[in-house]
Amino acid sequence: MSRLYGRRGKKAGQSPGTLVYSGRDRTEQVRLMVMDYDDGHLTEMPVERLEDCLALRDTPTVTWIDVDGVHQTDVLARLGEHFGLHPLTLEDIVSTSQRPKIETFPEYIFIVCRMLRVDPATEQIESEQISLILGRNFVMSFQERAGDVFDPVRERIRLGKGRIRKAGADYLTYALLDAVVDNYFLIVERYAEQVEELEAQIMDQPSPGLQRAIHQIKREMILVRRAVWPLREVIGTILRDESDLIQKGTRLFLRDVHDHTIQVADVVETFRDVLTGLQDLYLSNLSHRMNEVMKVLTVISTIFVPLTFVAGVWGMNFEHMPELGWRWGYLGAWAVFLAIGGLMIVYFRRKRWF
Amino acid sequence: MSRLYGRRGKKAGQSPGTLVYSGRDRTEQVRLMVMDYDDGHLTEMPVERLEDCLALRDTPTVTWIDVDGVHQTDVLARLGEHFGLHPLTLEDIVSTSQRPKIETFPEYIFIVCRMLRVDPATEQIESEQISLILGRNFVMSFQERAGDVFDPVRERIRLGKGRIRKAGADYLTYALLDAVVDNYFLIVERYAEQVEELEAQIMDQPSPGLQRAIHQIKREMILVRRAVWPLREVIGTILRDESDLIQKGTRLFLRDVHDHTIQVADVVETFRDVLTGLQDLYLSNLSHRMNEVMKVLTVISTIFVPLTFVAGVWGMNFEHMPELGWRWGYLGAWAVFLAIGGLMIVYFRRKRWF
Amino acid sequence: MSRLYGRRGKKAGQSPGTLVYSGRDRTEQVRLMVMDYDDGHLTEMPVERLEDCLALRDTPTVTWIDVDGVHQTDVLARLGEHFGLHPLTLEDIVSTSQRPKIETFPEYIFIVCRMLRVDPATEQIESEQISLILGRNFVMSFQERAGDVFDPVRERIRLGKGRIRKAGADYLTYALLDAVVDNYFLIVERYAEQVEELEAQIMDQPSPGLQRAIHQIKREMILVRRAVWPLREVIGTILRDESDLIQKGTRLFLRDVHDHTIQVADVVETFRDVLTGLQDLYLSNLSHRMNEVMKVLTVISTIFVPLTFVAGVWGMNFEHMPELGWRWGYLGAWAVFLAIGGLMIVYFRRKRWF
Amino acid sequence: MSRLYGRRGKKAGQSPGTLVYSGRDRTEQVRLMVMDYDDGHLTEMPVERLEDCLALRDTPTVTWIDVDGVHQTDVLARLGEHFGLHPLTLEDIVSTSQRPKIETFPEYIFIVCRMLRVDPATEQIESEQISLILGRNFVMSFQERAGDVFDPVRERIRLGKGRIRKAGADYLTYALLDAVVDNYFLIVERYAEQVEELEAQIMDQPSPGLQRAIHQIKREMILVRRAVWPLREVIGTILRDESDLIQKGTRLFLRDVHDHTIQVADVVETFRDVLTGLQDLYLSNLSHRMNEVMKVLTVISTIFVPLTFVAGVWGMNFEHMPELGWRWGYLGAWAVFLAIGGLMIVYFRRKRWF
Amino acid sequence: MSRLYGRRGKKAGQSPGTLVYSGRDRTEQVRLMVMDYDDGHLTEMPVERLEDCLALRDTPTVTWIDVDGVHQTDVLARLGEHFGLHPLTLEDIVSTSQRPKIETFPEYIFIVCRMLRVDPATEQIESEQISLILGRNFVMSFQERAGDVFDPVRERIRLGKGRIRKAGADYLTYALLDAVVDNYFLIVERYAEQVEELEAQIMDQPSPGLQRAIHQIKREMILVRRAVWPLREVIGTILRDESDLIQKGTRLFLRDVHDHTIQVADVVETFRDVLTGLQDLYLSNLSHRMNEVMKVLTVISTIFVPLTFVAGVWGMNFEHMPELGWRWGYLGAWAVFLAIGGLMIVYFRRKRWF
Repeated sequence: MSRLYGRRGKKAGQSPGTLVYSGRDRTEQVRLMVMDYDDGHLTEMPVERLEDCLALRDTPTVTWIDVDGVHQTDVLARLGEHFGLHPLTLEDIVSTSQRPKIETFPEYIFIVCRMLRVDPATEQIESEQISLILGRNFVMSFQERAGDVFDPVRERIRLGKGRIRKAGADYLTYALLDAVVDNYFLIVERYAEQVEELEAQIMDQPSPGLQRAIHQIKREMILVRRAVWPLREVIGTILRDESDLIQKGTRLFLRDVHDHTIQVADVVETFRDVLTGLQDLYLSNLSHRMNEVMKVLTVISTIFVPLTFVAGVWGMNFEHMPELGWRWGYLGAWAVFLAIGGLMIVYFRRKRWF
Repeated sequence: MSRLYGRRGKKAGQSPGTLVYSGRDRTEQVRLMVMDYDDGHLTEMPVERLEDCLALRDTPTVTWIDVDGVHQTDVLARLGEHFGLHPLTLEDIVSTSQRPKIETFPEYIFIVCRMLRVDPATEQIESEQISLILGRNFVMSFQERAGDVFDPVRERIRLGKGRIRKAGADYLTYALLDAVVDNYFLIVERYAEQVEELEAQIMDQPSPGLQRAIHQIKREMILVRRAVWPLREVIGTILRDESDLIQKGTRLFLRDVHDHTIQVADVVETFRDVLTGLQDLYLSNLSHRMNEVMKVLTVISTIFVPLTFVAGVWGMNFEHMPELGWRWGYLGAWAVFLAIGGLMIVYFRRKRWF
Repeated sequence: MSRLYGRRGKKAGQSPGTLVYSGRDRTEQVRLMVMDYDDGHLTEMPVERLEDCLALRDTPTVTWIDVDGVHQTDVLARLGEHFGLHPLTLEDIVSTSQRPKIETFPEYIFIVCRMLRVDPATEQIESEQISLILGRNFVMSFQERAGDVFDPVRERIRLGKGRIRKAGADYLTYALLDAVVDNYFLIVERYAEQVEELEAQIMDQPSPGLQRAIHQIKREMILVRRAVWPLREVIGTILRDESDLIQKGTRLFLRDVHDHTIQVADVVETFRDVLTGLQDLYLSNLSHRMNEVMKVLTVISTIFVPLTFVAGVWGMNFEHMPELGWRWGYLGAWAVFLAIGGLMIVYFRRKRWF
Repeated sequence: MSRLYGRRGKKAGQSPGTLVYSGRDRTEQVRLMVMDYDDGHLTEMPVERLEDCLALRDTPTVTWIDVDGVHQTDVLARLGEHFGLHPLTLEDIVSTSQRPKIETFPEYIFIVCRMLRVDPATEQIESEQISLILGRNFVMSFQERAGDVFDPVRERIRLGKGRIRKAGADYLTYALLDAVVDNYFLIVERYAEQVEELEAQIMDQPSPGLQRAIHQIKREMILVRRAVWPLREVIGTILRDESDLIQKGTRLFLRDVHDHTIQVADVVETFRDVLTGLQDLYLSNLSHRMNEVMKVLTVISTIFVPLTFVAGVWGMNFEHMPELGWRWGYLGAWAVFLAIGGLMIVYFRRKRWF
Repeated sequence: MSRLYGRRGKKAGQSPGTLVYSGRDRTEQVRLMVMDYDDGHLTEMPVERLEDCLALRDTPTVTWIDVDGVHQTDVLARLGEHFGLHPLTLEDIVSTSQRPKIETFPEYIFIVCRMLRVDPATEQIESEQISLILGRNFVMSFQERAGDVFDPVRERIRLGKGRIRKAGADYLTYALLDAVVDNYFLIVERYAEQVEELEAQIMDQPSPGLQRAIHQIKREMILVRRAVWPLREVIGTILRDESDLIQKGTRLFLRDVHDHTIQVADVVETFRDVLTGLQDLYLSNLSHRMNEVMKVLTVISTIFVPLTFVAGVWGMNFEHMPELGWRWGYLGAWAVFLAIGGLMIVYFRRKRWF
């Protein structure tokens, strides 16, 4: 089962802005990559010293600093200082069980969203926190670990495909959000297949494990919904926002990604409805089969229990049981048995029990 | 079962505006038909070269370009270029599992809605995406394949019936939306009959397949609702919109079609309530029948199991069982049997078990 | 069962404003009655020629034209023409499965509501569409057939009781809506009694038909709710409306009828809650009785099945069964039977099974 | 069971403002009490002639006219005339199954609320309608019968405790509403105890009557909710209202009573949630006990039914049954019985059936 | 079980502002602690005489008066008088089953929230009311008893860590609210573990107590939700409020704690969804196991009941039963038994009953 709720870094009552990493323990080195580009040039390099970023930050080119790993809080603290990030922002970045949200600060916009991935080993959804900071001419992205869904974006920057090299930091932010949301569609598609398969199985031959399968998909859907619903609001907030950090042309694109979150949310709701229906169907099937079994039991018992009694009667050892001595007594007994059985069957047929 | 969620064309992270068709594979040629009309004249012809459309577009007459098939993305790309469509619009047109939506661009209004059809072979609902573009003096409609609900609209244009030939492109858009929504009523009517029939059956004689039938109708209703609810918002948005692409006189008609979507949504909700009620009734019937069966089983067993024991006692082979030798022993045994059975029956009657 | 959804007159794609009657087939003649009154005079007469109405319409007196039957579309078409009704209004009037709604036109306000009646034969609710048109100095009401809830209003006009003869067309419209809503209270009162009776029965002695009775009341309540909820919005809209067709003094009265719709809606919701609770209670009773039956079955079987086995053992025909020859063997057997039975009973008592 | 819905006085279609009492039949005389006070003086007396009130009404002192009984409509009609009450207000006062509501008239504010009382005989909630009229310098309160929750308010007026004698009619209205709402807390407290007791019982030893008890509390809670929820809106409306009948200082107090209604509503919702949970627990317990009973039945049957068959086999009267003559045949038979029984028990243990 | 609803102090109809303590009976002395600080100095001391506070109140330094115990209403009354608290505020402070709320008065903001604690003895949540008063340069906090979650805040004040010593009374209020909300995360984390453990158990081996465990967690979650949801609104109200008691810089921090309440609420909702799913799974497992047991019972009975009858037949004592004398009769009987049993088994296999 995927975790319902992660540990929370900050201890109760601690001073706000205290940086305590709350995710899984990690030992790898935090890795920073920087891409600095405009229409004409592109610099892509790992960051050795944070001071190098600072220089890039002040150029008019777009600078994308991608941070893989937020468990080394000292690195973050220095980064925050250089880029003028509010302590609460840093606290949110290292506290990795955040709900998607947006916060506008005078100098930057801070966005938290969640990247979903199906762990191939456990077949369960893993949710990783992505924090984005959109400043003037720079974008910072923070991930819990290496490996993300941003490679196509990097590729587009490298190849200069589409409008990305001509556009500003706001468009890059859009591109990253779009990559995150596009990835949701893959997740949803995967579960759509599972739901349809489950449906076919329940229709065909309900087996005991299906209820558990329904529960598992429902549970995963809760996780997807927790990632998608708030993100929808987040992007809606960006759209309404009048910050000059986002240009008018980019809003059209953000509207598109907003629309995508609505679509994912809509599909997730549909799954919930369908799964609830499947559960009803499964339970009803179970009840129906139980009913059928009961009826057979009843028919058999009801026919043979009285017959057994009658046979027992003639098996009694009383001395004076005249019918036992009759010539056709035994045949008569069979006649009695068949008569009783026959009447029972007629009765059950009329009750439509079989 | 109808598909819960189709494939999505665009791959995660791809540049926005990349055209990847996402529907079923189709090999037929995309077909374009154009109708150009005003009060006095009408031209109707298939489009051979896209440039022909372009000429018509700039005339003050209303031009309706109907595109059957969106799987040839090169045709769409060129069309988009000629008519100044935004890349995101084109992406939405070819991505055929869209939720109904409206997007206003400076030069045109883009509407996505879904046409429902009951496949006669599978008796299930199929949902096809219709994209409408309302520009100045022209309307474009994109469908996934040939065959639609627009024939009555074409007929009205040809015959010059009603106000359609006198009105503008906005009225044509209304007429198309109206045809789509009118078609929902047919679907709903069809299911209304099924629901009423199902209700009669459950009231009369519940049989095992009914739960599955309930599930199937519920599921189809989810699909209808997914088409209708957002469309209602879409038309509501057009009504509130102050774009000069829609004239005041047309708003009255759009209000009417808005009202129709509310009616369909209302009926669908009613179906859901009724189906939930039917399910409860079905399950309760199942339980009740089970109960009845149990009671018969219990009565029979409770009467005959003790009797069988008593008969067994007198069938024992002990040497010294004085009652076996009594003259009226056997008759006495029957008296005992009848007394036990009779007391049981009285007891059960008092318990109202039968 | 009352119909969930009626046929819809207009065929898909037909020109808006096409008049196709959609209700039950009717053959009787459409009947028009007119009442023309002011404080001082009253004219009440059937309308022979539509032109007669026209004359009355232009007088400053209040003219109420009541149309019984909307199946003769030619009559409606002419009426519409005379009184300047929009084609969409006429279409709505003949399309008799409308949801309650209000539409304001420059020259008149168009209101659709539904009159409920319990058919004495089937004991089910029938819903008839009432369309009201409030113009300057005239009111038109359209009903599906003769027979309505407006007689007390007519009587008040005739007798000049209350303020109706002194007030304008808006007050008449209010009076008609009030009569429709007052009638809902009768319906609701009737069902209140049924629900309370049902409750008493389920508390007392649950019988198999009760689930069906619950279902039927729930279903009827859905119909009532579909009539009441939208009407509440409709009257709310009139209240907020600033049309000069409605005078300030009348708004106080409309507020009152608005309040009544809220009360009916509130009672209907209460019924739903109570019925859901009754259903739970019924099912729980069913389960409980099943449980009780099962326990008796188990106790009887558990006591006698082992005893029967033991009796069967001593009924075996082995030659060497020493106890069979013992002097007190038979008495000993009974001792064994009583001991086994007694222990069982003690065990079940401790399990609290009976 | 408390009534779900009372009779409604006014008959359908009757002229608005027609006074028809709708509550239980009452024969006692309507009783009017008046308290007239300001900071310095207090007059408290029964009203013999309505004209006496009129004189008090026009003094600058606060006049509280408390009417016990609304079944004598002529008294009310005259009172309404003297104090300038709108006919619709009078109609609402005598129609005693109103939902709490507020209506502002130019000269007064009309408030309907419901006083709850637990009938000591039936242990069920009774709901009585209280109508309050706040005019300039006077308050009128109408109750269905003698006996109310206002005694502490009267006492405070008599003793001149708190600010009541110094404040105006608006503060008196607040004090009355506050007394009504405070009384809800008593009701809620009483049910809190019942719910907690029920919970303890279900946890401990579920017995058949508990489902009925759950149903009854749920049903009473529906009644409480129907009194509380609308009252919350009513007081919210007074708070937002800008009528000069309510002074600024009093609003602080009204905010407090508004807050109390929210608290009661909140507790009622909590009860609903807890009761739903209890119901699930009860049903699950029932199922579980059923399961346990079934298992015992199955184990007993499964062990002894085959044994009984085997014993029956050796009880057959075939002439050639060699084992019957064996020296150790009978002991062998017991060995067979024990072996079969033992294997069964091992099997069931492995299935964890007991 | 934790209490659903506490006693309410004020008696119905009592004068508003009457101070009646409503919590558990307590005998310990009410304890007041004061911390007075600014950037440069800090005074921390118990309060002996209320007059000492008063002096501090008027200094420009921040004064935090922490009151442990609200059962001595005379102390509160004098405090209220000194600090100009409204009687209704005092009444709310001593009435300890309040819902979280905010009330703004001209001179101060009054906030009620609830501190949750898991009682180590009973493992159940206890909810204690915290009342905060934010005045100009002073903060008062009222708790039901000693022991709270504010120690880290006190420590930060003592050490001068973070910005707390430099900021004003509004920041201190934020810090206290933050400590309360941070504590919710601990509670939630604890239940997250319980839910996950429960889930694992139900998946693995459902045992009878699990339904009760589900009920208990659901119930505790209701209590958490009742604390968290209104607090979210409370903090939302502070954020929107334009009172000059709260500085702009502090709003950023309040936004953060607002965000935390949303997160807690979100997790609580997730728990509810998951627990509902678990309950379905548990009940379905129960049904399934019942089904399995039933099938075994049926198979055994269905095979052996007819066989027992047949053996009984040949155990009858009729004189003329020819097959009893046949040489191979006994073997034939076994052949019949095996044939009947075999056919049954084949039949059940085909029915897939085992």
